[in-house]
Amino acid sequence: MANFFTLSEFAQVLAAAPDADAQALAGAQQRDRQLTKPPGALGRLEDLAIWYASWRGSDRPSLDAPQIVIFAGNHGVCAQGVSAFPPEVTAQMVANFEHGGAAINQLAKAFGAKMDVHALDLDRPTADFTQEPAMTEVDCVAALQTGWDAVDASADLLVTGEMGIGNTTSAAALGAALFGGAGSDWVGRGTGVDDAGLAIKARVVDAGLALHSSRAPLEVLRCLGGRELAAMVGAIAAARAHRIPVILDGFICTAAASVLEKTHAGALDHCVAGHLSAEGAHRKMLDGLGKEPLLSLGLRLGEGSGGAAAIGVLKAAVACHSGMATFAEAGVSDG
Amino acid sequence: MANFFTLSEFAQVLAAAPDADAQALAGAQQRDRQLTKPPGALGRLEDLAIWYASWRGSDRPSLDAPQIVIFAGNHGVCAQGVSAFPPEVTAQMVANFEHGGAAINQLAKAFGAKMDVHALDLDRPTADFTQEPAMTEVDCVAALQTGWDAVDASADLLVTGEMGIGNTTSAAALGAALFGGAGSDWVGRGTGVDDAGLAIKARVVDAGLALHSSRAPLEVLRCLGGRELAAMVGAIAAARAHRIPVILDGFICTAAASVLEKTHAGALDHCVAGHLSAEGAHRKMLDGLGKEPLLSLGLRLGEGSGGAAAIGVLKAAVACHSGMATFAEAGVSDG
Repeated sequence: MANFFTLSEFAQVLAAAPDADAQALAGAQQRDRQLTKPPGALGRLEDLAIWYASWRGSDRPSLDAPQIVIFAGNHGVCAQGVSAFPPEVTAQMVANFEHGGAAINQLAKAFGAKMDVHALDLDRPTADFTQEPAMTEVDCVAALQTGWDAVDASADLLVTGEMGIGNTTSAAALGAALFGGAGSDWVGRGTGVDDAGLAIKARVVDAGLALHSSRAPLEVLRCLGGRELAAMVGAIAAARAHRIPVILDGFICTAAASVLEKTHAGALDHCVAGHLSAEGAHRKMLDGLGKEPLLSLGLRLGEGSGGAAAIGVLKAAVACHSGMATFAEAGVSDG
Repeated sequence: MANFFTLSEFAQVLAAAPDADAQALAGAQQRDRQLTKPPGALGRLEDLAIWYASWRGSDRPSLDAPQIVIFAGNHGVCAQGVSAFPPEVTAQMVANFEHGGAAINQLAKAFGAKMDVHALDLDRPTADFTQEPAMTEVDCVAALQTGWDAVDASADLLVTGEMGIGNTTSAAALGAALFGGAGSDWVGRGTGVDDAGLAIKARVVDAGLALHSSRAPLEVLRCLGGRELAAMVGAIAAARAHRIPVILDGFICTAAASVLEKTHAGALDHCVAGHLSAEGAHRKMLDGLGKEPLLSLGLRLGEGSGGAAAIGVLKAAVACHSGMATFAEAGVSDG
C-alpha cells in the first residue's frame, strides 16, 4: 500500500505506475486470431479482451472478482443553490446503499460484483469553492488516501462511483479548468435543475475558475473538487498500481479521472469508459481523453451505475476470448 | 403449441397474437416513479424495464431464464461464390456449438442462458434463389414450425441466432425485397468477402429480386430466405404467443424479424434490437423497423452473439426496476 503525504508525492506515485504487460498483450492478440470466428467479427469485444489481458498479465484471463466502490461527499457549493435535491440526500442515499436499496446495489448483484461504500466526512462539507479552496491539501490528500486504500488488491476489475449532492457542479468546474472553456460549456442539469438552476451552475463555475487560477491538475482537484472526487482519483490510481482494469462511470467519475490523465499522460490507459452520460458535457470530456464509451443508454444517475452496467460487456468480451475453441481445437476450416 | 400447414395459416396466427399487458405497463410506470433516483436518471434502462414488465404481465418482473436458440441452414446460393468460407463450415460450427467452443456458448454461460441448437437439413441446402425459389411452401412451413417449437414456453427472454454460410446474401435479398432498393444497397462483407465478392453478392441479390417478383413478406421469405431464417421467424412469433420478450441479434436475425413486421404491423412490439452490426445495411433495416439498438460494438459474427451480449443490459434494467427501494421505503427525500 502506497502512502503519500502531499499532492506532489501523489504525483510521483503516478509517474512510477506500471504499464500493461507486453507479453500478455502479444499472446492475447495471437490467441484472438486463432479463435473460431472470422477475423474481427467480435468487433470491440476483441479489443476489450486483449486490453484486459494485457493489464491482467495473462493471455487468457478470467474476470471473476469485480469490485464496485462508492464514495460519498458533501459540497459547500450547495449553498449557492446548484442542486434540485437538498444536501441531506447524500447521507440518506449512503444509508440506502448500505441497506441494498439503490440502483447500484442491484447492478452489483446482477454482475456478481463486491460493493463497498465510503462516506467521507459528510457532516463536514467541503468549502464553497466560490469563496475559498474546496479542500486544504491535508483534506485532499486524506481523501486520495481513502480512495487508494479502498481498492481490494485481489479484485480483477474496478468500478468507482459517487454520491454527492452538488457534485455535477464540481465536476463541471474540473472540466472547465482541465480542458478549457467557461462554466456554460460544462454544466448540465445534473439530477434535474431547471433553466434558472442551470444558469446558477454556470455562474458558480465561472466564479470558481476566477478565484482559483492555478491549472495544475491536482490543485484544480483540491480547489474545485470534492472528497468523493479525490477518493475516486486515489482509487483509480491504486487500481493502476495493482494492474486492475477500471471501468469509468459517467460525468463526475470521468472528471475525477481526468485529473490523473492531465497529471501524467497515459495514467488512464488501464481504464475504459463505461458509458456516455446524458449530462451534456460528458462527450466532450471523453473526447478530451480519447475514450469511446461502451454503452450509450442515457443514464445520469451516478453511483457508478453506468460503469457497473458495462461490466456485462467486459465479462462478455473476456468470456469469449478465454473460453472459445480455436480453429484447430474445433476442426473448423478457417476460410 | 400452434400448428400451421400453410404460410397463410401462419399469417393468421400472427394476426391473433397477444399484446402487452396494459395493467402491468401502468403498474411498472408507477413503480418507476417511486424508485430512489431522480426521475429518468436510469435513461433507457427505465424504458426497457417497463417494456419487459408489460410483456411479462407483472409490474415487478424477474429475468431468470433466458433462452438462446441457434438455427443453422445451408444455402444453394453459395454456388454463386458469395461467401469467404466454404459451406461445410456450417456443419463444423454446429459441432462447435454442441461442444461448447463457439462465442455464443461463452455468452450463454456468462449471462446464465440456456442454449439450444437446431441444424435444419444441412445436407439438403435450399435451392439457389437466382434459379428458383429457395424453398417450397412445405419446406418453408416446416422451418417455421421447427422455430416455433424450439421456444421454451417457460423462458422469460429469447435470443435467436443463426449459422449459415451464405446467409448474409439471403438477408440482403430480404432487406431489398421488404424495404426497397437494389442489391448494392443491402449487401455487405459478411464474414469478410473482398470487393469482387461484394460485387457478386449485389448481382446475386439483384438476380433473385428479378426472378421472384412477389413482395408478399412470407413469399419473400420462401423465395429468397433460408431454413434458419424461417426458423427464426417462427421462434420470434412463438415468443410473442407466449409473451416472451425477444432481443434481436444482428443483420440476418433482423432481416428474418422484418418478415413478421411486414406481415403484421406491430408483430415485433415484443422485441428490442440487441446491437448494431458492422454489416452496413443493418442500420437501415433497424430504422425501417423503428428499433434503436442497445449496443454498438462492431460485432458481425451472427450466432445470436450481439443479442446475447445485450442480455446483460436487459438484466441490469430489470434488476434495478424490481430490486430498488422506493423513496418511502428508504426514507430518502424525493427532491
